[in-house]
Amino acid sequence: MSSELHFDSLWQGFHVATMTSGHYNIIEDAAIGVTQGKITWIGPEQQLPTHQAKHRYQLDGGWVTPGLIDCHTHLVFGGNRANEFEQRLNGVSYQTIAKNGGGIAATVSATREEDEAQLFQSASKRLQSLIHDGVTTVEIKSGYGLNTRDESKMLTVAKTLANKFAVDVRTTCLAAHALPPEFQHDADSYIDYLCDELLPHIAQHNLADAVDAFCESIAFSTEQVQRYFTKAQSLGLPVKIHAEQLSSLGGTTMAAGYGALSADHLEYLTETDVLAMAKSGTVAALLPGAFFTLKETQKPPITLLREHNVPIAIATDLNPGTSPVLSLRLMMNMACTLFGLTPEEALAGTTYHAAQALGIADTHGELCVGKVADFVCWDVESPGELSYWLGGNLVTQRVKRGIKA
Amino acid sequence: MSSELHFDSLWQGFHVATMTSGHYNIIEDAAIGVTQGKITWIGPEQQLPTHQAKHRYQLDGGWVTPGLIDCHTHLVFGGNRANEFEQRLNGVSYQTIAKNGGGIAATVSATREEDEAQLFQSASKRLQSLIHDGVTTVEIKSGYGLNTRDESKMLTVAKTLANKFAVDVRTTCLAAHALPPEFQHDADSYIDYLCDELLPHIAQHNLADAVDAFCESIAFSTEQVQRYFTKAQSLGLPVKIHAEQLSSLGGTTMAAGYGALSADHLEYLTETDVLAMAKSGTVAALLPGAFFTLKETQKPPITLLREHNVPIAIATDLNPGTSPVLSLRLMMNMACTLFGLTPEEALAGTTYHAAQALGIADTHGELCVGKVADFVCWDVESPGELSYWLGGNLVTQRVKRGIKA
Ligand SMILES: [Zn+2]
Ligand SMILES: [Zn+2]
Repeated sequence: MSSELHFDSLWQGFHVATMTSGHYNIIEDAAIGVTQGKITWIGPEQQLPTHQAKHRYQLDGGWVTPGLIDCHTHLVFGGNRANEFEQRLNGVSYQTIAKNGGGIAATVSATREEDEAQLFQSASKRLQSLIHDGVTTVEIKSGYGLNTRDESKMLTVAKTLANKFAVDVRTTCLAAHALPPEFQHDADSYIDYLCDELLPHIAQHNLADAVDAFCESIAFSTEQVQRYFTKAQSLGLPVKIHAEQLSSLGGTTMAAGYGALSADHLEYLTETDVLAMAKSGTVAALLPGAFFTLKETQKPPITLLREHNVPIAIATDLNPGTSPVLSLRLMMNMACTLFGLTPEEALAGTTYHAAQALGIADTHGELCVGKVADFVCWDVESPGELSYWLGGNLVTQRVKRGIKA
Repeated sequence: MSSELHFDSLWQGFHVATMTSGHYNIIEDAAIGVTQGKITWIGPEQQLPTHQAKHRYQLDGGWVTPGLIDCHTHLVFGGNRANEFEQRLNGVSYQTIAKNGGGIAATVSATREEDEAQLFQSASKRLQSLIHDGVTTVEIKSGYGLNTRDESKMLTVAKTLANKFAVDVRTTCLAAHALPPEFQHDADSYIDYLCDELLPHIAQHNLADAVDAFCESIAFSTEQVQRYFTKAQSLGLPVKIHAEQLSSLGGTTMAAGYGALSADHLEYLTETDVLAMAKSGTVAALLPGAFFTLKETQKPPITLLREHNVPIAIATDLNPGTSPVLSLRLMMNMACTLFGLTPEEALAGTTYHAAQALGIADTHGELCVGKVADFVCWDVESPGELSYWLGGNLVTQRVKRGIKA
């Protein structure tokens, strides 16, 4: 009997930023051994013990990081809103666009009209762009169906994407995203509908890993979201929230009371909110793509978040209206340039802390023994380059659960 | 004898934004016939006359535009400055970085140390990123050699890139970019050296298509640039200028007096400058990547440029310090989002007007009979989507002089 290690695959020829506990924690000239999709050995190549390996891969230099995790997307939707983008830049007002059925209403209408196959096809293209740029896990929200049938349809499409692409998908039910036309001027009745019918259906059919709401004066009030969260919690679903994006409503503090996985956007976050997040272990998911596209000026309070050790994640918020972003790495640059994050924080925000924001930090987001072997090799001389370059094809190899992807 | 058309290749199955005269000028369900690398027929597929074609290509829908033209890059350089980017975000001051040999001095030093093969290799990677995103013509400046040997080396590398990649390269001598250590505190003597030795050498060896200077308080004065331009003009080289980026020095008006092809950056452009540009036909090349990276707030005067019909180009300014940008299409989004350009203006800025900025508008930048058959097919439903999406892989086919690239 031998205590020798047996790897399904062994990877060599690179440096690693392991991102354990959210820090670079670098291993130079590293090797990674994988067994049954998980990392069973990682360390300096020179310390590799006696072993056998079914497959050996010698990479051509560069840096390996955990596969990137996009913890906040609205990747499945019908149509797109390039026409509105173009109209606005040609001087048409938001009001006129809204009057003509534009804005989120346009996406709800298009999403309801498309069938699963159509939604799958357009979502596939967007997902491929994210994957191409280093993403191995993606969260996908519903929120453009706004009824049981169409929210379920969106979540089903999201789950199906994981069958075709080498990516883990986490789904989030965002039925409390906007008021559908059927409930215009009656948000409370819509929340009743979500609690009585939609959420139980989603839970029963296992369509969502979490439940999300948009808490803002133009969406739902803190009290309305509270009722919806109470129902979600009773169904065993963890919650997260879009909050403090355009104003300070206290949605984040409320959500922290429900042990929210993450609170997202957070431009108008107060110190009270930050303290509540620190206490509940809620991740701050920052979305610089929306900040940039909306030309916001109020920035999330990075200093406070750091002071109180609130984990910071970074995501694309990929959506057709306020963040048509197809690159997570670009969001790392924007988090540095617009919000002042360090490149190390930006990378932690798309790996370790993004995994926390999805409640999968026990398996994803860092490279160490026992975690899934999801990693990416980049043609860079330092991990800081991932945040430094805007655009560009830097990925030389993607590895999903130990398999070349 | 037949008057029938004979194409080397015939392309069908898409709509076209021809960008003739800088406008979409759309042809739906179009066909493009190519003979000896030039467009010999373009129009609606249904109007295609009797013809023969050696090769027929049926594309799978989408939109065709002229190949993108990046009219302002510093693509060839040694090293990179990700370390400084990271240091600054970790709180190290510009002053400290400069004191430790950072900033442009670091790039000059690294560029001087590397040989042609090394520079070629790193430039190739950056060029491949641009090409992947739809670029078929790129301008490349020297400016990190700052002596005859190393400026020539940079320009030689730039020209050599065109041999390996399916891209047209235009080279620009930017010897008046910064003061080299040999001439510290003696800018006038450096200008003497450029006029007496460097420029004549560059001209004699045909290394540059144009001559460029950085006119700014931290670089060269209007008078110094004037002497240098006078010499360039006497050598038959057209000029362009980096001007009015950080302050208003009047460099643009001065350059317009030399019939400058373009004036670039232009955040502090005055109406006097705009009038001078309109008179001389000088293109305004806007560089939103530098504006974004430097967190500038003063925007180029778009309204004035429009009022006076000054053509607007958009470029990456790809450089290791102030614009580490590897995607020209991202600059189109930033030109819209940050400067308020329309998507049509942004696309004109990377096609028709970019060709003007390089003095190649007689052959490049629009799709019509007689122009080079450089075009790109994009997986989009409208040309506005090219400016709408941030990131993403939208190119489905590149065609360089009628050949699949
Ligand atoms: Zn969102
Ligand atoms: Zn420049």
